[in-house]
Amino acid sequence: MIILLTNDDGINAAGIRSLYEALSTIGKVYVVAPDRNRSAAAHSLTLHKPLRLEQIQGDWYAVSGTPTDCVNLAVNVIRKESNPDILVSGINQGGNLADAITYSGTVSAAIEGTLLDITSMAISVDGRNEIDYSGAAQFAMKMVRTIIKNGMPEDALLNVNVPDLPLTDIKGVKITRQGKSIWEDSVVEKVDPRGQKYYWIGGNNLGWEEGEDTDIQAVRDGYISVTPLHLDFTNYCAVKELQHWRIDLQGL
Amino acid sequence: MIILLTNDDGINAAGIRSLYEALSTIGKVYVVAPDRNRSAAAHSLTLHKPLRLEQIQGDWYAVSGTPTDCVNLAVNVIRKESNPDILVSGINQGGNLADAITYSGTVSAAIEGTLLDITSMAISVDGRNEIDYSGAAQFAMKMVRTIIKNGMPEDALLNVNVPDLPLTDIKGVKITRQGKSIWEDSVVEKVDPRGQKYYWIGGNNLGWEEGEDTDIQAVRDGYISVTPLHLDFTNYCAVKELQHWRIDLQGL
Repeated sequence: MIILLTNDDGINAAGIRSLYEALSTIGKVYVVAPDRNRSAAAHSLTLHKPLRLEQIQGDWYAVSGTPTDCVNLAVNVIRKESNPDILVSGINQGGNLADAITYSGTVSAAIEGTLLDITSMAISVDGRNEIDYSGAAQFAMKMVRTIIKNGMPEDALLNVNVPDLPLTDIKGVKITRQGKSIWEDSVVEKVDPRGQKYYWIGGNNLGWEEGEDTDIQAVRDGYISVTPLHLDFTNYCAVKELQHWRIDLQGL
Repeated sequence: MIILLTNDDGINAAGIRSLYEALSTIGKVYVVAPDRNRSAAAHSLTLHKPLRLEQIQGDWYAVSGTPTDCVNLAVNVIRKESNPDILVSGINQGGNLADAITYSGTVSAAIEGTLLDITSMAISVDGRNEIDYSGAAQFAMKMVRTIIKNGMPEDALLNVNVPDLPLTDIKGVKITRQGKSIWEDSVVEKVDPRGQKYYWIGGNNLGWEEGEDTDIQAVRDGYISVTPLHLDFTNYCAVKELQHWRIDLQGL
């Protein structure tokens, strides 16, 4: 089995190293990851400048771009002869939950994999510092086997989030839907040494909308959350509503 | 009416200037846009470095960041006292259609607006060069009025795509769903003057899956496409399927 790993925390992050160690026991693993931290890169693609690709050692490659760029170079340059059997993106430092996944480089690498017809999974640990990734890496191994055995559902990629707890303290696994955060962006205004103002974007998650079956509720309750996502963002309820609006070109 | 404009082609792009001219006739318009082209920035947020905000003239502001950063600074710094009544992102040079919208900075600015509880619309012209934006700008004005009159459907933002045709040659307006592209990424490999390899990502759209009611089909048939999107990416069919999988922590 050929496994492609990437992430958005960069090639030197502890999460991707744990993942590499675990998945190397069940397949041939390639790592193609950003040369530095690219968190919150979302699904951005580098179109305006060239990319560098450096073979660090063995099957580890660093790319001077985003997670999406990494998947592109992995498929179109490094592994040109055939697609990997599965792409795993992570293990991310920090949860990718609720509507914050729209910013996520980790999830976007799995979106890019899906667009390129590769079975794809993103995995994150919902913690901040000094995370022990070994439990999540073990679970990733189990998920890869399960996905390969069952086959990925049509038009789906999986977004997996693991609580920052020892495996023995995790209560179980829940299949969830994407929740909805209640949050505000906060921007800090400061003045540089030359007296010029600058701004730094923070982000306060104030909570989340209640719902037993959401990703964020599951993780906060001590469960691993597995959410199938797709790339069809159409709001079908709104389609029906808009069909009653009168929108035409009259008067233009 | 307070209208916030942004884009991903940058503050000097012709599309946002056309939009400004048209929308200034129906409201007070603020422009907060990237200081340079940020196409394919997707929903990326600048978290690792400070941002500069420059008041170019009057209500035109340039930001040293992504479209998502622009919306953040517009709401949290420039217009801190109250949210705009509507955010319009565009007019983009090039269609934002089918699953390519996952890369789109134009659509992502409207996603950020929606996350911040602002009624939001993205608008693009499906052309490449020497686009005449005046027809799309007229249509944007009509859409803004229609949205304000009817109220945006729940959890929706609108993705509008206009064919690159004179208004008189456009056949009408269709409410559509997001289509699916058939495409391949292409990566060009070259050698720099020092003999080092570099890579440049292209992207070939090979076509699209058939479907009368899709965004891409509508635009290619000469209609304006209006697609309501939402921020819930859950694949609910796959949720049901995964509930039959046996996923647990046994053996870990």
